[in-house]
Amino acid sequence: MKDQPMYIPTLDDMLAARQRIEPHVHRTPVLTSRMLNELSGAELFFKCENLQKAGAFKARGASNAVFGLSDEQAAKGVATHSSGNHGTCLAYAAGRRGVPCTVVMPHTAPQAKKDAVRGYGARVVESEPSTSSREAVFAEVVAETGAEFVHPYNDPRVIAGQGTCSAELIEQVTDLDAVIAPIGGGGMVSGTCLTLSNLAPGIKIYAAEPEQADDAYRSFKAGHIIADDAPQTIADGLKVPLKDLTWHFVSNHVTDILTASEEEIVDAMKLIWKRMKIVMEPSSAVPLATILKNPDVFAGKRVGVIITGGNVDLDKLPWN
Amino acid sequence: MKDQPMYIPTLDDMLAARQRIEPHVHRTPVLTSRMLNELSGAELFFKCENLQKAGAFKARGASNAVFGLSDEQAAKGVATHSSGNHGTCLAYAAGRRGVPCTVVMPHTAPQAKKDAVRGYGARVVESEPSTSSREAVFAEVVAETGAEFVHPYNDPRVIAGQGTCSAELIEQVTDLDAVIAPIGGGGMVSGTCLTLSNLAPGIKIYAAEPEQADDAYRSFKAGHIIADDAPQTIADGLKVPLKDLTWHFVSNHVTDILTASEEEIVDAMKLIWKRMKIVMEPSSAVPLATILKNPDVFAGKRVGVIITGGNVDLDKLPWN
Repeated sequence: MKDQPMYIPTLDDMLAARQRIEPHVHRTPVLTSRMLNELSGAELFFKCENLQKAGAFKARGASNAVFGLSDEQAAKGVATHSSGNHGTCLAYAAGRRGVPCTVVMPHTAPQAKKDAVRGYGARVVESEPSTSSREAVFAEVVAETGAEFVHPYNDPRVIAGQGTCSAELIEQVTDLDAVIAPIGGGGMVSGTCLTLSNLAPGIKIYAAEPEQADDAYRSFKAGHIIADDAPQTIADGLKVPLKDLTWHFVSNHVTDILTASEEEIVDAMKLIWKRMKIVMEPSSAVPLATILKNPDVFAGKRVGVIITGGNVDLDKLPWN
Repeated sequence: MKDQPMYIPTLDDMLAARQRIEPHVHRTPVLTSRMLNELSGAELFFKCENLQKAGAFKARGASNAVFGLSDEQAAKGVATHSSGNHGTCLAYAAGRRGVPCTVVMPHTAPQAKKDAVRGYGARVVESEPSTSSREAVFAEVVAETGAEFVHPYNDPRVIAGQGTCSAELIEQVTDLDAVIAPIGGGGMVSGTCLTLSNLAPGIKIYAAEPEQADDAYRSFKAGHIIADDAPQTIADGLKVPLKDLTWHFVSNHVTDILTASEEEIVDAMKLIWKRMKIVMEPSSAVPLATILKNPDVFAGKRVGVIITGGNVDLDKLPWN
């Protein structure tokens, strides 16, 4: 598998991304809840990327990667390995441009995920669940098609795209003291760092992570990347490790990483569904869970909270 | 129980309501879904009153009633009988003005409904489930407190308040061909008629009703009010009958009333949750259910769809 060169995306890359993807993504609304403000002691502004195209913020990065390709590159298509939102969002963006897209996922992935990718006109190629099988199958796909690999997060085009989310947020809400987003591989957090460190350096950036997949937390404390071996958490978008590019942003610009237990995540998820009337993923509930757990950090502050996605299995809700 | 006089609210009443309630309600967002457009063959614009204060459009009418009271009236408080969103929303509005509110509901009402009313600082007084007990208990409450009765829908102040929803909608979306809303007692539909017949008379108004509680449908076809005896439907906000004031608007301004089965309602509800990532009540799914059932009526049209509320029991979802 080809490594991306370590090019650090800049503010100009984010601004170019914003212009490039504007016809293809929603400017998502910011919602508030008096009750959640009272409960947290903070003023919370929820940036609803669950209402984004294809149901996740990853439509931003994927669209930036796909629409930034030359016609020649685009004709060969794009490819990735993902059984989560990145696969769906890359399929969305490729479908939108009308170019081929292949997503490698383990045959054990949920049927709904495969259907979502195919629903946008992309091809699903199945591998065994192991990393070695996935990499071998993916290498075959690239060799056969010449498709451009778009990594789920460790890719400057993807990070620049994700950075457009907080660029919108600071236009929609003034005088934020902090922004908090869930962290898995670190794509959203890196995009947030890219944008805020340039446009609003006074805003503190927090990352929120499940205790049961706290590799970013431990990396942050240790000062180098620590990768977990197959962590188990209900926040299934957050199991992947940091990589060099996202580590660059996280280690340089994040104020702190906070963690929450599985029970706290489910409670926060249900609270958001109940009070804010939105459908969102367990991963998206981790920030609120950590805010409620750390009232001293956020009390009296104006806090932007990124709701990262809404693709959840309605037949298997964690409180049923 | 005191009847409201048959005063028909006017455009001026709606405009006054809009100014009066503006600090107390959300200008709710309008969401769209490419997939639901493809499925329906229409262009659908969902006006999300599930994201309204207290989780339902009824915050509009209740706020208009409460904030329109003189100080003298307000000091005695407001009262209603409702085990649904009107009770919660009247409690919300009264709490916002800081005046007493009493809601009479059967002791069999869900604990969550009682808690919601009390959560806004109002008093719950329990009756037996029968209409006679409810009326007797309500009469006692009014005699004791001198509170102003705010009917859930057959009240000009309430209808004028509900009319602010479509006033916003036609500012948010241009060139609508039709608007469709669920119909129970007819408060939202009447407010929609009031506003659109004055401000946008070219827009057709449809009402959507469960087959199993189709009294408004049968009234519309018969040309006079027919009240069902205790209809049973999952769309529990839509069990109540039309009254004189709402019948006035429905009979004069509605183009048609369409119905859907319980299964069609649940399917439409799940579809909206899944594709639009919003939490809404079964009642709010009836319009989409009827749109999907009547493609010939809506094909190629730009249709506003009122999502009326989001107060649903997350522990008892109809597909689990």
